[in-house]
Amino acid sequence: MVKRVYNFSAGPAVLPESVLKEVQQELLSYQGKGLSVLEMSHRSTEFKQIMEDARSRMLKLMGLGDDYVALFLQGGASTQFYMIPLNFLPDDKEANFINTGAWSTKAIKEVKKMGKKLHIAASSEDKDFTYIPKEWQLSENPAYLHITTNNTIRGTEWKTDPDVPAGVPLIADMSSNFLSKPLDFSKYDLMYGGAQKNIGPAGATFVVIKKSLLEKQREGLATMMDYQTHIQKDSAFNTPPTFAIYVIGKVLKWIEDNGGVSGMQKRNEEKAGYIYDILDNSDFYRGTVVKEDRSMMNIPFRLPTEELEKKFIAEAAEHDLLTLKGHRSVGGCRASLYNSLPMEAARKLAEFMQEFEKKNS
Amino acid sequence: MVKRVYNFSAGPAVLPESVLKEVQQELLSYQGKGLSVLEMSHRSTEFKQIMEDARSRMLKLMGLGDDYVALFLQGGASTQFYMIPLNFLPDDKEANFINTGAWSTKAIKEVKKMGKKLHIAASSEDKDFTYIPKEWQLSENPAYLHITTNNTIRGTEWKTDPDVPAGVPLIADMSSNFLSKPLDFSKYDLMYGGAQKNIGPAGATFVVIKKSLLEKQREGLATMMDYQTHIQKDSAFNTPPTFAIYVIGKVLKWIEDNGGVSGMQKRNEEKAGYIYDILDNSDFYRGTVVKEDRSMMNIPFRLPTEELEKKFIAEAAEHDLLTLKGHRSVGGCRASLYNSLPMEAARKLAEFMQEFEKKNS
Repeated sequence: MVKRVYNFSAGPAVLPESVLKEVQQELLSYQGKGLSVLEMSHRSTEFKQIMEDARSRMLKLMGLGDDYVALFLQGGASTQFYMIPLNFLPDDKEANFINTGAWSTKAIKEVKKMGKKLHIAASSEDKDFTYIPKEWQLSENPAYLHITTNNTIRGTEWKTDPDVPAGVPLIADMSSNFLSKPLDFSKYDLMYGGAQKNIGPAGATFVVIKKSLLEKQREGLATMMDYQTHIQKDSAFNTPPTFAIYVIGKVLKWIEDNGGVSGMQKRNEEKAGYIYDILDNSDFYRGTVVKEDRSMMNIPFRLPTEELEKKFIAEAAEHDLLTLKGHRSVGGCRASLYNSLPMEAARKLAEFMQEFEKKNS
Repeated sequence: MVKRVYNFSAGPAVLPESVLKEVQQELLSYQGKGLSVLEMSHRSTEFKQIMEDARSRMLKLMGLGDDYVALFLQGGASTQFYMIPLNFLPDDKEANFINTGAWSTKAIKEVKKMGKKLHIAASSEDKDFTYIPKEWQLSENPAYLHITTNNTIRGTEWKTDPDVPAGVPLIADMSSNFLSKPLDFSKYDLMYGGAQKNIGPAGATFVVIKKSLLEKQREGLATMMDYQTHIQKDSAFNTPPTFAIYVIGKVLKWIEDNGGVSGMQKRNEEKAGYIYDILDNSDFYRGTVVKEDRSMMNIPFRLPTEELEKKFIAEAAEHDLLTLKGHRSVGGCRASLYNSLPMEAARKLAEFMQEFEKKNS
């Protein structure tokens, strides 16, 4: 019996223990084939099946059909910040953004660097990104609207899928709440994010594209920056991040086996509930964002003093409750409660928070 | 005891069994920390150490000092084909190439796509890329000279480091023979390649840059396409492919423990020797490239008929000698004998080749 800790990391993050055990068991010989997935040609029958399973499982969990295509690319959301305008932003139109935090800001910066037109349709920067704007104003010739569905650093989350006028593609960075709850995924034209929060380890970037969006693609793109390159070669134009995709496939199956995205929502609401109940009923702990927009995935909170925060993080670690430090740009504490975090971890953290409050207030 | 096969894949390729066993042993709990490297924050003390070890070990194996920097990026050599001209090819100079096969051709295509100037300093396309050009002619204003040190598909390899005039940076795609033998790495200004052949699993791209080359960098680049982005953040500007880097670190240590690049050369010469001895002493098997340029890593060969080649590949598989099919673009057979391939595998293949010849000639 290997001792495991409670891992509240914002990503790379905890994976289901059952998945890790399968990976461990197969590590020297995948399905008795005599070699590890770490050593397996991406052109082998076995790996092609792993890739196909992961791609189709992802679309199925999203309730999407043949009008969408799923890819596993590399370079993280940060590379998508560049690829999206490169592919879909013509010179005579504006990229529209709803700016809800550090990651949207980075996506905006990339369009600025390219010297292209953009428009901030709404922003919550006026209040330190502590809420999700409820109204926005698109520009005259919007190429697309880009949102960030969950803000890992600030802990806010979109609770509804935004309505956009017909003909305006909706693009979303879903890195930190992907497949954590049901969404109307069919409202989105392009969804992307790093796998390392809700669906797998670091090293693969999921990209789900509505095929009709490709009609709007610009020409003459660099081979690797062109979504068509990857679509035409079933996400294996060059060597894909094979092992990451293999683990993702197992996590997607685990999501299916645990009730799909509805099952995840139920689990995630219960887990977040333990922590939010404490924040709502305490003068000691303080949530940092408006209640209606708070995230099920990332819960930032403050204690009365920075000294107490340090003490809290250190004592939590002694109880095997790890990675509770807030992002360096905002300070304080943060608990990330992604799909794979066990219920027990949230309960243990809640208990610890109550005990710590008693002892220190 | 897990049964393992002999894996002659051109990449992703075989890894040392001792490395796989360590990875397996640590899979649920890295160094007793209670979590897997698959779940570990890239900002954690543990992962920072893993990254730093891998980066410094790589430079040390290459005999390089502080005037070089080592990165682990994503996107494969294919993304480097784009990043290199983007960073280092000004409009008034020419990218110079020695074209030795499919991969150089792809690198050339990328510069053409950008509408930039290029010059083919030499090419072996006239003879189906079956040799390495011994002479070349640079253009008037060369931005750099790009070579491919080993040609995975055709099975040719540079035996010496090319001499370039002072002030002309030498850039090399070393994907398929990196760290397989001593080179004068200090003659190169930028070396890159996919890790999945000689130093690890798929999912990470090694890039080693001479710092002085950065003075020639163009401005206004997209964040993720700018080498400085990655250099300034110690190869962790955004989430790196953590698990791939962890396995690479272990393979690099295994190379060190087995005599470094000189030790690898000795092993690799012996392994390739078993196969080339057969090709040299057979009328049945036929090597496909000129003798003096043949690769220690990838050995393509033909049999008298395509029918016999099919039979050879099928019967080899029955003897657990796998992935011996030539690249689809050239046909025939190919054995890849990277660093991690055990000596026993090369011996077994040689034995099988002799037996097969006896039975079928």
